[in-house]
This record gives sequence, C-alpha cells and structure tokens, in this order.
Amino acid sequence: MPNYPLEFCFAGVHCGLKPARELDLAMFASTRSCTAAGVFTTNQIKAAPVVYDQELLQAGGQFRAVVANSGNANACTGDKGNLNARQMAAQAAERLACIPEEVLVLSTGVIGVQLPMGQIRSGIGIAVQELAPDGAGRAARAIMTTDTRPKMASRRSEQGFSITGFAKGSGMIAPHMATMLAILLTDAEVAQPDLQSALEQAVSSSFNRIVVDGDMSTNDTVLLLANGASNSKPKELDWENFCSLLGEVCSELAQSIVRDGEGASKFIEITVSGAPDSAAATQIGRSIATSALCKTAFYGADPNWGRILCAAGYAGVPFKPSELALWLVDLQGSHRIQLVSGGEPAGYDELAAAHLMQQPEWGLQLDLGQGNAESICWTCDLSEEYIQINSHYRT
Amino acid sequence: MPNYPLEFCFAGVHCGLKPARELDLAMFASTRSCTAAGVFTTNQIKAAPVVYDQELLQAGGQFRAVVANSGNANACTGDKGNLNARQMAAQAAERLACIPEEVLVLSTGVIGVQLPMGQIRSGIGIAVQELAPDGAGRAARAIMTTDTRPKMASRRSEQGFSITGFAKGSGMIAPHMATMLAILLTDAEVAQPDLQSALEQAVSSSFNRIVVDGDMSTNDTVLLLANGASNSKPKELDWENFCSLLGEVCSELAQSIVRDGEGASKFIEITVSGAPDSAAATQIGRSIATSALCKTAFYGADPNWGRILCAAGYAGVPFKPSELALWLVDLQGSHRIQLVSGGEPAGYDELAAAHLMQQPEWGLQLDLGQGNAESICWTCDLSEEYIQINSHYRT
Repeated sequence: MPNYPLEFCFAGVHCGLKPARELDLAMFASTRSCTAAGVFTTNQIKAAPVVYDQELLQAGGQFRAVVANSGNANACTGDKGNLNARQMAAQAAERLACIPEEVLVLSTGVIGVQLPMGQIRSGIGIAVQELAPDGAGRAARAIMTTDTRPKMASRRSEQGFSITGFAKGSGMIAPHMATMLAILLTDAEVAQPDLQSALEQAVSSSFNRIVVDGDMSTNDTVLLLANGASNSKPKELDWENFCSLLGEVCSELAQSIVRDGEGASKFIEITVSGAPDSAAATQIGRSIATSALCKTAFYGADPNWGRILCAAGYAGVPFKPSELALWLVDLQGSHRIQLVSGGEPAGYDELAAAHLMQQPEWGLQLDLGQGNAESICWTCDLSEEYIQINSHYRT
Repeated sequence: MPNYPLEFCFAGVHCGLKPARELDLAMFASTRSCTAAGVFTTNQIKAAPVVYDQELLQAGGQFRAVVANSGNANACTGDKGNLNARQMAAQAAERLACIPEEVLVLSTGVIGVQLPMGQIRSGIGIAVQELAPDGAGRAARAIMTTDTRPKMASRRSEQGFSITGFAKGSGMIAPHMATMLAILLTDAEVAQPDLQSALEQAVSSSFNRIVVDGDMSTNDTVLLLANGASNSKPKELDWENFCSLLGEVCSELAQSIVRDGEGASKFIEITVSGAPDSAAATQIGRSIATSALCKTAFYGADPNWGRILCAAGYAGVPFKPSELALWLVDLQGSHRIQLVSGGEPAGYDELAAAHLMQQPEWGLQLDLGQGNAESICWTCDLSEEYIQINSHYRT
C-alpha cells in the first residue's frame, strides 16, 4: 500500500447510478478537520455541485469529507439540482456526525437528469460503513465514467507528510480551466490561503496543460484537502518542496488522463521553446494539442509537420516563420529527428520519422527562436474510436 | 450554361501535380482590366501566393487573371517558394500578353514541397490555349483537393451584371478568417475600395460562419475581380442589391464547403438568437459548430443537448443559464422540437428528436433570452471517415 496521508479513509460503492454493479459513489473522509482549496470550471454553465462547493470554499470553513458520484453530472438541473447537491452533503454529514457545511460534493456523468436521491442516500449509508484507509482503489474506480482505468498518484515527503490524488476524465478535456474531477489529499498542515495558491500553481502546469478533445466540461473541479495529521508544517520548513510534490502528483494524474483519452492510442508531449514568455509558449502548445488535423496525423504516424506549423500559426502569438525549428523526439531523450529548420523541411528520413511516431509515447519540440521561455503540454491522438465512443454516449 | 459574367474565360487542365490525369491547374482570365479585392488567412504562416497577392492588392493595380494550382500549397517553402509564386504569375502574364503584376496566384495542397515549375509552366501554356467562356466547370474541378465535388454559384442582377464564384475546401476549415480558396468574378463596374468593403462584408457572413474541423489554413484566400463588361455600375444604381447578390453567392459556396466537409454525413444550420449583439451570437454559434463532442453527437443523431449548452457555456460570452431555450428544427420551418426550456430539459420525445437528427440537413436554434440579435453558422458532423481521410493524407 502506498503512503496515503494519515487519518484519511476512503470508500467506493455501487448505489445504482451505473449499470451492472459498477462502483458509482465515492467517499473521501478525514477524521480531523481539514483546510481546503478548489479550482473550478470557467464554463458559464456550472453544475450544481460546482456552485455549491464554490460557495462553501468562499465561506472559508473547515472540512471533513468529499462525496462524489459518477453516472450523473447534476448539471442543467435547475433549483432542484442545487437542492439535491445540498442534500447529498447533508446526508453524508448526518452519517459522518459532522455539519453539512463540512462536506464537499462532486458529480460526473450525464447532463440534465435529476439525481435519484434515494439511491444516493443508500449509497452514502453503505460508503460510510465501508470507509477504510485501504479503500482508496475502490474510491478511484467509483469516480470513473468513460475512463478505462482508475487514476491515482502519491508522493511522500522527507518532512513526513504525504500527498495522494485521485482523478477521473477521458473526454470533454480541454485547456484554460481546472479540468475534470480531481481530489487531492494531504496530511500536511497548511493554512487555507497557502493551500489555494499552491493548488492554483500546480493546476496551471498540469491539468491546464492537457487536451483530449478541446471541450470544457460543466463539472470540472479540483479539490485539495489538508488535515495536518502528519504534524508537518511545510510552509514553515520547505514550502518549495510541498509545491513541487503537489505539482508532481497533479502532473502524474493529468498525464494519466491523456493516456486514457477517449479512443487514444498515443501519448504526445509537446514542448514549445525559444518563446518570448511561457504564456506564449503554452498558447502555441495548446493550439497544436487541440488541432484535429495534427491529432489525426499523430494517429496515422504521419510526420505532417505542415499541420503542426499551421496550428502554431493560428495560435494568436506572433513569431517569425523563418526562425522555426521542429523535432520529433523520443521521451527518453536518446533520439531526435529534425523535421523543420528555418521554417522549411529539414531533409529528414521519412521512414524513420514515421517509425518513431508509431511508438505509443513520443514528443514534439518546436523552437520559435525568439527567446528563452518554454512550456510543456500533453495530448493524445484522435482516432475512429473517439467518434464511436462519443456518437452514441447517451443512447 | 448559367449567366457567367461577360468577357471572362476559364480553363482547367492537368499538368502533373495530381496523379491520374486529374485536373490540377485552373485559370480565370478577363479580356478587360479588372479591379480586384481580397481577403486572406490570418494565420502567422502564410503561403507564398498569399504574401504575393497581398502585396499586389495593396499596390492597388488592375488585374487580368488568376492562376491557381491544386496538389501543392507552396507554403513553408521559403524564398524559393516566393520566387516560384512570382514566376507562376510571370509565366501566365507572358502567355496572356499582360504584365506580371496583372496576374494573381493561388495554390492549395501539400505543405512544404517546392512547386515543380516545369510542370506549372507547361500547364499554364495549355490553360491559356484552352481558355473559353464555357470552361468554368473544368476550372472549378482543377482547384479541388479532398473535395468530392466542384463548388460554383452564380447570380444575375436585373441591373444587367452577373456574379459567379468558385470555391474549394473540405478540411482545414475554421472560423475567424477568410477561409479556403474562392474566386469571385463579376462584370459589374466597381471601384476598388467599394469592391473590398463589399467582399469583407460578404465573407463575414458566409465563409467566416462555417466550420468543418477548426483548423485555419496557411493558404486561405478569397479573391473578387470586377471587369465592368456589363456596363452596369451598381454603386450608382442599387449598391444594396450588388452586396446582397454577392452575399448570396458567398453563402451558397460556403454552405457547399460544409456539405462537402471531410467525412461529413450531415449539414447543420445553427441559429443563435436572443443575444445582446450579433458578435456574441456568432461567438456562441461557432463554439457549438467547432465542438468535437457536439459534432460526434450530431453524427450519432443523439439529441445530447447537454453538450450543446456546455459548448455555449465556454464560448466566452456571458449569459444566464436559466434563460436558455433550445430547439431542433427542420430547415423547411415546418417542424420543431423543444429540447431545453429555462435551462432545463423540456420533456421532449427522444425518438422524434433522434429521427429529425437522422435527416441529412437540419437546424439548431438556441435562444439566450437576453436581446434581439441573432446569427447563423453552418457546420457538419464528425465521423470516423474524417479520421480516415486525415490520418494518412500525405502518405
């Protein structure tokens, strides 16, 4: 068992939202009060749990648990949906013997259907009974929708605290937001404002750097709870180390989401270097990571560098086309093939390039030749299977 | 034969850029000098002919011809590519007995390969010999790449002038630009500044309202030539009528491009109404038109209105989710099904909605409930065939 943060328990149960006894309700609970931070979707249409959690976090309280369901997004459900999110928290609070305002809620799944509150209530009842320090794997599975595998990551610090994260997501994944659902737990002791700034920084270089399909969900939420059970106070000792480990957990989870992208057969790391600043580099990286034409070429292992330069060209960042250089790289750093030099074809071996692109993981490096900043994004290819998954998702 | 503008001749020939004797070089020539206007890609990476034509139009001269090739984009080809674009114009000018600065050039096809100038030269020689008033159909075919059918539209005014347009495009089609290639010809007499403003207005409500895949090409160009051969001066008579007919030709061509979208099986008209202004309505329409999740649901005839509201929600335009109403409509206006009312499901018949979406052409109407402005966009569905076409385009 990995080093989970102390005094957190987990459960994953089936309550009837998904068919065939699949796990569909997760609980993450702390025996001690936690500070908490959150980052949420910027979509105008926010699911009921997003609105509820944002209100709670703004009120600045202490927290004991997160309860999450899959199979139903509780989005576009109006006043009744808001009431249901509130009741979901209240039902969990009643069983956990805490107040409703100490429970955060998350939902993911189909939009526009009211939560079946009887099933939620019975699921919460079972989950509270099953809460255990070794229930993390079941909790990770209970938040999956089209995910093909659970997504967890953990780090342990020499200062004595641990950070564990859970995430779900493989479609409706796009940049410029706190993407999909993730629950991050630590037994470090961290004050709320520090926790929020550490989370925002970690999200900006992890979950906000991945693209599956360019669609930004109504439910995207990342929550971070800190219960202090390790008695380690990283802010007083080595704050950089806490932020760095949190960033590692977030990056590992973000990369897991891309690797499990709907219909994806390849994982691609896009490095944009030589940029005037890192925001410009990120903007170009995201444009390439989102382009349907680039992603189909990645799928076909076609070193179609013209599409990559084209996507860089409409990213909205000025650069000199004649300064561009582009390489295919393997992620071990042992091999690279230059496709473009000075904005023109570099005379590469077409078969060697196609061979590298047939591997399940590889990278692109685009140098703008204009500065010293760089940024990394992660994406996957776009295959027929994405279409098959998404053309009949509901029916 | 439709009413082509007077004193224009056309040719479409094979010069060896595409395999199997397919037509790959087109010429559009006027026996009289023309005023000309152009709208070009906003991509940072501009193909050589885009740079060349922009320079010529800025210099404000008179024009005699447009020569266009398919099978090679002359993009990312450096100084030699610029020289080749210039030589292509010069070769045509020599054969047409005019000066090089009277010839505009267009290229479309693969990026990053130098034009084979010997073949271009011989193609231009044959094209000049074949120039004829009835060569329009061959010219339209000679600019096709992945298009499955030629795209032409014509209008004749009661004032005596005609407008004919030619377009190509079925992939790398996205908003916020003058998209793909189009050549528009008229025998009206129009001064250059008026021609340019009429063209920009027509493009903004036609070519800039279509989405196939969200990728913005390096070569997108719309050219409009007016030779005055009809002796009709619409600016002095009925300028609205000229602009209106030009808009009709552009809209018909733009819709042809969407109908021929790569792998598309359906044509969808998206109307966003009740907006504070038309720019806001367009921004939301484009977001829906570009969303991979919406387009796969269109393909699967799945009335997944949650994805449509979700795409509206991340368009960057503020609105009240509780005011939203959404309908599926047939384009004859005889039938509509309300999917969403007050931001929540409207209790529609799921089978009837799916049946309407199985038709090859239908519409969506999204009302924001916030104003009186509206805007229309056109898109197509996203199918496995798009992936198949684009994963191995070059190889």
